[in-house]
Amino acid sequence: MTELEAARNGKITENCRRCAEAENIAPEVLRDAVAAGKAVICASARHGGETPVAIGRGLRTKVNANIGTSPDHADFEEELEKLRAAIDAKTDTLMDLSTGGDLREIRQAILDACPVPVGSVPIYQAARRARDRGTAFVDMTVDDYFDIVKEQAEDGISFVTVHCGVTRKSIKILQEQGRVLGIVSRGGALTCEWMRKNEADNPYYQYYDRLVEIAREYNLVLSLGDGLRPGCLADATDRGQVAELVILGELTKRANDAGVQVMIEGPGHVPLADVAMNVQLQKKLTGDAPFYVLGPLVTDIAPGYDHIVGAIGGAIAAMAGADFLCYVTPSEHLRLPDARDVFEGVIASRIAGHAADIAKGIPGAREIDDAISKARAVSDWDRQIELAIDPARAKKIRESSKPADGDVCTMCGEFCAIKVHRGTDGSTHKKS
Amino acid sequence: MTELEAARNGKITENCRRCAEAENIAPEVLRDAVAAGKAVICASARHGGETPVAIGRGLRTKVNANIGTSPDHADFEEELEKLRAAIDAKTDTLMDLSTGGDLREIRQAILDACPVPVGSVPIYQAARRARDRGTAFVDMTVDDYFDIVKEQAEDGISFVTVHCGVTRKSIKILQEQGRVLGIVSRGGALTCEWMRKNEADNPYYQYYDRLVEIAREYNLVLSLGDGLRPGCLADATDRGQVAELVILGELTKRANDAGVQVMIEGPGHVPLADVAMNVQLQKKLTGDAPFYVLGPLVTDIAPGYDHIVGAIGGAIAAMAGADFLCYVTPSEHLRLPDARDVFEGVIASRIAGHAADIAKGIPGAREIDDAISKARAVSDWDRQIELAIDPARAKKIRESSKPADGDVCTMCGEFCAIKVHRGTDGSTHKKS
Repeated sequence: MTELEAARNGKITENCRRCAEAENIAPEVLRDAVAAGKAVICASARHGGETPVAIGRGLRTKVNANIGTSPDHADFEEELEKLRAAIDAKTDTLMDLSTGGDLREIRQAILDACPVPVGSVPIYQAARRARDRGTAFVDMTVDDYFDIVKEQAEDGISFVTVHCGVTRKSIKILQEQGRVLGIVSRGGALTCEWMRKNEADNPYYQYYDRLVEIAREYNLVLSLGDGLRPGCLADATDRGQVAELVILGELTKRANDAGVQVMIEGPGHVPLADVAMNVQLQKKLTGDAPFYVLGPLVTDIAPGYDHIVGAIGGAIAAMAGADFLCYVTPSEHLRLPDARDVFEGVIASRIAGHAADIAKGIPGAREIDDAISKARAVSDWDRQIELAIDPARAKKIRESSKPADGDVCTMCGEFCAIKVHRGTDGSTHKKS
Repeated sequence: MTELEAARNGKITENCRRCAEAENIAPEVLRDAVAAGKAVICASARHGGETPVAIGRGLRTKVNANIGTSPDHADFEEELEKLRAAIDAKTDTLMDLSTGGDLREIRQAILDACPVPVGSVPIYQAARRARDRGTAFVDMTVDDYFDIVKEQAEDGISFVTVHCGVTRKSIKILQEQGRVLGIVSRGGALTCEWMRKNEADNPYYQYYDRLVEIAREYNLVLSLGDGLRPGCLADATDRGQVAELVILGELTKRANDAGVQVMIEGPGHVPLADVAMNVQLQKKLTGDAPFYVLGPLVTDIAPGYDHIVGAIGGAIAAMAGADFLCYVTPSEHLRLPDARDVFEGVIASRIAGHAADIAKGIPGAREIDDAISKARAVSDWDRQIELAIDPARAKKIRESSKPADGDVCTMCGEFCAIKVHRGTDGSTHKKS
C-alpha cells in the first residue's frame, strides 16, 4: 500500500507517525494532508535505515541537495564527500543526478551511505543506457523509459523526477512564442529531442499509466518535472511553462486517484515580483500538490553567487506556499559543484526555508530565533554558537578576532550597545 | 545652497545632472523628486573628486558598506584595505564607523582614498572625545554633539546618521512594552545612557534646529537613525520602534521645510512576512522620504551567513520601496569584518538591490540579465563572465573545472540541455 492509499483508508503508518513527530504535529493532521494530496511522505521500504520525510502544506519547508557525476567529472569518492557535506549541512533529501561513470554502482553507494530519502531523474540513466549500447541517447526505447524507473525504485529511490508535461502540445506552444534560452532542463531537452527523432509523444505522457503503476507498486513519489522551466528571467511565466503546468495538474489528479503521491517541480529563473504569483498558480492548477522549486533565481547576473540568488527566491517562494527547496550552489552555471559548494548551497536554502517557516507559522520555527536572541541579550556566546545554523563556522569567525572583554565582540568593543544599555537599564528586558 | 533648495528653485545642479545621467533618467525627474523630499543627492563639496549619488524614489537601489575601527581592533591599513574591497565590489557609498584609534586621522585617510560619498555617525566621535578627556562617554557635552557634526561636515562627510528619535517619549514607550534585546544601536544606546545620566532629553532632538542649521550650511544629508530598531525578530515592529518612526516623520518635515535633505534609517531584524509592511509604514509616516535599511535580517539564527539573511530581507524591502541597503557581512554578530567580509557583503546587497530593481522597473536593470542570458544561449562564456556581477569569481570557478568540450560546463557535459536542444531546434530561440 502507498502512503496515500493508507492515509485514504484512515491509517496512520509508521512513516506518518515518525514524520508527524519530527514536525511537532498530530499524526492525524499529516495523514489528512497526505490523503488530500497536499503533502507527500518520501520513504522507500527498500532503502534501509532511511528517515522518512514529509513535504507539503503545514509542514517545515524542506531542502534538497543535488549531487552526482557528469560525463566530464565522474569521481566516485568525490560524490560520497559531497553526500557527507550535504548531510553535515542537514539537507532533508538528496538527489543523485549522476550521468557519468557506472550509474547503478554510484547510486547504490549513495543509497548505502545516505540516511535521508534519495531521489533521481531516471531519464538520465535511460539516455546513458542507449549511449552504452553504442547508439545515440535519443535511441532509448520506450521500455528503457520505464525499466529504469522500476530498477531505481527497486534499488531504494524514494522519489523520481519525470518530465511528463513535455508533450507535443506544450512544446508547440513554447515554440510558437519563442524563447531566449529554449529548454534548459536536461530531462526536458532529452525528451524533446527523443520526440522529434522518434516522431512520437513523450512516453511518460503517452503511457503515463505504466509510470503510475510502478509508482504504486513501490510507494514511489512522482515528482512531476518542469522540463519547460524558464532558464532566464526573459522566459519566465511564458505560455510554454504554464501549458506544461496545466498538464501536470491533470496528471496529478490521475496519479492521486490511483493512490500515487505526487509533487510538482517549478521554476527556475523568475523575476522577484513574479515569484509569489508562480506559487499561487501552481497551487491552483494542481489542487495544492506540494511544490518543489529550483531556486527560484531572481536574477541571471550572479554566477558564483547563485546560492544567494536562490535563497532570495526560495524565501519568497516558500513564504508564498512552496514546500520544498532544491538548493542552488555557488558553482551553478559554471561547473559541477564540489563538496564545499554543496555545503554552502544547503545552508543558504535552509536559511531561506527557515525565514519562510517563521512567516508560515510552522510550529517550533520562531522558537530557535527567540532562544538565540535571549542568549545574545545576556552575552552567552557558547549558547549563541550552539544555536547557530552552522555552529562550527560561527565559532571559527568569532575566535578569529577575540575582544579584550569576553562579553562583547570586536565589532563594537566597549561601545557594545547591548552591554552599554544593559549596564544601567534592566527594565527593557521585561520580555526575557 | 543645498540640493533641496536648488531643486525647489527649479535649478538643475551639476550634481543633479551627473546623478540623472548615471540613472538614465531626465534631470528634471530627479530634480522634482529631490524637491519633493522623495530623493536625496549625497554630494559633499568638501570631499574632492567624489562621485555624487542620488538615493530615492524611481532610482536604482543603492548599497552602503560600513567600515571603521573598533576599540579592540584599530588597524589603519586594514581599514584602507576594506575600503578598496568595498570599492572593488562597487559599493555606492561608504560609512566610516570608526571608534578606535585617531578618529579624525582615519576619517581623512578614508576620505582621501574614497571616490564615493562617505557617511558617518558623529556621536561615536563625540563619545570618544569625552573618553579622551578622561571622563565617561556619557560626559560628552551638548556642544560636543554639534561640534563633531560640524567638524565632520567640514572634512567632507556627505551624510550623517543622527538618532534624533531616541527621546524621553519613545524610550518610555519602549520600556513600558519591554524587549528581549533592548537597544542594539550603538548610537541609540549611547544617547539613552546620556539622557539618563544628564537627566535631559536627546540634544539632537531638543536642539534639532542646530543640527538642521549645520546640515543646511554644508549641504549635509541627515540620515535620521533608528536608535530603537529591533535587534531580533521578537522585538520587531514594536511600539518603541514605531514611536521613534513617528517622531522621525515630524523631524523630516521640519528639516525639509528648512531646505535640508533627509533620509530615514530602518530595521534591523524583521520577520520576512513583516518586511514589506515596515517599508510601507515608513513611506506613509515620512512623506515618502528615502528609506535606508540595515538588512533587514529575516532570521536571528545564521551568524556567519548574515550577508545571505540580509540579502533576502533587502530584496523584499527594496521591492516594497526601500531605496538604500546597508550591507551586512558574514561576520555580523561575531566580529569586526575583514576585507573579504566587506567584499562579500557588498556583492550580496547588490544582488538584492538588483533583483528588486527589476521588480521596480528601474531603467536599465533587466537589460543586463537579458544580455547574459543571450550569451548563455550561444555558449559565449567570455561574454557571460564579462557581464557577471563578479567576473573574477565567475572566471575562477569555471576555470577550476574545465569541460572536454569548451561549449558546455562540467555540470552536464554532453548532456547540456542548451546544447542538446540548440542542436536541432533553432526555432525556440525566436526572441533572441
